[in-house]
Amino acid sequence: MMRMKRVYLDNSATTKVDDEVVGAMLPYFTEKFGNPSSLHAAGRDSREAIEVARGQVATAIGATPAEIIFTSGGTEADNIAIIGGALANKKKGSHIITSTIEHPAVIETCRHLEKEGGFRVTYVPVDPDGVLKLDELEKAITKETILISIMHVNNEIGTVQPIREIGKIARETDVYFHTDAVQSFGKVSVNVDELGVDMLSISGHKVHGPKGVGVLYLRKGTPMRSLVYGGGHERGIRSGTENVPGIVGMGKACEIAMRDFDSNVTHMTRLRDKLIDGLLKIDHSRLNGSRALRSPNNVNISYSFVEGESMVLLLDMKGIEVSTGSACSSKKLEPSHVLLSCGLDPETAHGSLRMTNSKYNTVEEIDYMIETLPGIVGRLREMSPLYKK
Amino acid sequence: MMRMKRVYLDNSATTKVDDEVVGAMLPYFTEKFGNPSSLHAAGRDSREAIEVARGQVATAIGATPAEIIFTSGGTEADNIAIIGGALANKKKGSHIITSTIEHPAVIETCRHLEKEGGFRVTYVPVDPDGVLKLDELEKAITKETILISIMHVNNEIGTVQPIREIGKIARETDVYFHTDAVQSFGKVSVNVDELGVDMLSISGHKVHGPKGVGVLYLRKGTPMRSLVYGGGHERGIRSGTENVPGIVGMGKACEIAMRDFDSNVTHMTRLRDKLIDGLLKIDHSRLNGSRALRSPNNVNISYSFVEGESMVLLLDMKGIEVSTGSACSSKKLEPSHVLLSCGLDPETAHGSLRMTNSKYNTVEEIDYMIETLPGIVGRLREMSPLYKK
Repeated sequence: MMRMKRVYLDNSATTKVDDEVVGAMLPYFTEKFGNPSSLHAAGRDSREAIEVARGQVATAIGATPAEIIFTSGGTEADNIAIIGGALANKKKGSHIITSTIEHPAVIETCRHLEKEGGFRVTYVPVDPDGVLKLDELEKAITKETILISIMHVNNEIGTVQPIREIGKIARETDVYFHTDAVQSFGKVSVNVDELGVDMLSISGHKVHGPKGVGVLYLRKGTPMRSLVYGGGHERGIRSGTENVPGIVGMGKACEIAMRDFDSNVTHMTRLRDKLIDGLLKIDHSRLNGSRALRSPNNVNISYSFVEGESMVLLLDMKGIEVSTGSACSSKKLEPSHVLLSCGLDPETAHGSLRMTNSKYNTVEEIDYMIETLPGIVGRLREMSPLYKK
Repeated sequence: MMRMKRVYLDNSATTKVDDEVVGAMLPYFTEKFGNPSSLHAAGRDSREAIEVARGQVATAIGATPAEIIFTSGGTEADNIAIIGGALANKKKGSHIITSTIEHPAVIETCRHLEKEGGFRVTYVPVDPDGVLKLDELEKAITKETILISIMHVNNEIGTVQPIREIGKIARETDVYFHTDAVQSFGKVSVNVDELGVDMLSISGHKVHGPKGVGVLYLRKGTPMRSLVYGGGHERGIRSGTENVPGIVGMGKACEIAMRDFDSNVTHMTRLRDKLIDGLLKIDHSRLNGSRALRSPNNVNISYSFVEGESMVLLLDMKGIEVSTGSACSSKKLEPSHVLLSCGLDPETAHGSLRMTNSKYNTVEEIDYMIETLPGIVGRLREMSPLYKK
């Protein structure tokens, strides 16, 4: 049986690796496979490749190479920033501020520190559009506050958070500030000085780079502790033989993301707006997240009287790949904590669909999505005892 | 300038990835790039690929798939086993036993727990051949002992440790037992039941698999805590989007290692023995580690009156890539803690060379090494004020 062409609209879950990225990585599996810690030529070649990648990442976010720590992914980068940052500053205080809509890599890490690390955590709420309540953040800061961690772009509803404003507040109050930029990098401008952050996480596989590699930006002078111990790689913060091909791929992906930034954003924004306009024509629908402060690749819409999971499965049968929310929690039955934080009732939250595009999507694919969904929603509503036409 | 053909004899630092492994990984970068947590077809394909790999790893070490946790590498696997294992058993006791010759991923992790985790650690010494003193290990066990971590094969001198015997002792005394099998897998038999271990670490890039992926075997029922928090991947023990291509490569590398095990071991043993015999003909030399209880791929010899690093650099100029000890500490100036533990004086320890072969090395390469080293040692000794012919 020939497999039908698939329309992939789940780019906030993960992205296709660019052929150019794979091409850059390939030699480091077989021809140039040295351990970067080795003194001989094979080792030096690998070390050089890592430092080139470090420069590419640094350039992409306006940092210096020495401020770039390669990790195994966004989750590890978030964990190092929060646990490592908290432990390194414990003498100063034990209060951490985050938001109610963070990714599990941040929110679960904060809960862990709260439960077992002796830290107090404030979870700042968001408005109905999913934008952090800045005044509540300001009010939450005390002399005990050592760390603020607020994501740049939300992974479910695409809301762009007021990171610059938080950065200013953090500076003024002398609190270290981390942002999870996993969903923003390549979609909105990410410059560590403009944002005013001390720490920032990005992930390879969300930006057409490989899985298994991420970056923690760590501003010079920011106190840090490591979570794993060993050979003292990555300035002692992240021990373990460096994932050379992954790091090379990460560097190349950052370079490409910056090179093609403007055209990608224009393209993604066009697809996003077309999709929002087309899919909001279905009745009993609502756009989740802000229309204005929104990642160019994110569409998240709730349809009353239907289950998100049923829509995902029926769309999959039509060759369209989307999600109900984040991939990380797609197999849980609880409604999205992000949508509940925006004030949705659990039923409406359950009927939400996330469609996230990339530079690889086409207008034709968006048209196909817009053609296909109404029938699916209609069919599911026919089966719903709650739905009255 | 044409680059000369290189002879790579540093396979304990890292190995070339098999073409077959790269071939298995490649589709998962671009064609099958889904997030394994996604519900749609792309997600399911990735999930399936991970579970196939989990089965391949499990089969290779005699475990069940549910006992296999994919990590970002050997260091992370060791850290989870030791920190996670220690924290999970803290109520029972706070004493850990390890050896004086462990890899930094174990020894530094134990030091961390000692310094800051409220744990007491006993570092059991080794005999002059680098074999653990079993009687001292037995004497060290108290009612407070919760964890023993002893490596299977030492990374510097290749000594095979009496893991089965330790496994029996651990069973009898009801203490959890972890072994770092990073250097043994593919070279000596690794079966979790025969060894009697509760936890075992392996690394992809040491067995012709990719960097950035490793495995923690965790026997069913063994208490464990995670080090990072997030989406709850890998049974909640190792959060973070799975490195699908890396995991696929790890599975394939394990399959190949087992498929070709006998012929590889025969080949490596032949090269090893030829190299030992050839290189011990140089005077004022001594083999480090046991001749009998030795990994088939490891040669480690000390040459008096010369510096290991100088030999490495001059060999590199002749196209031969070796190391002074572990890659992880190759840039440190201190003499090897492993060689000092075997009773070598610091000067002799400084004059050591580690040559580790793989299935890819040839007899001709070994001959070239045997031809080349005497001249280099002689030249360096000529320059040494301590050397008298």
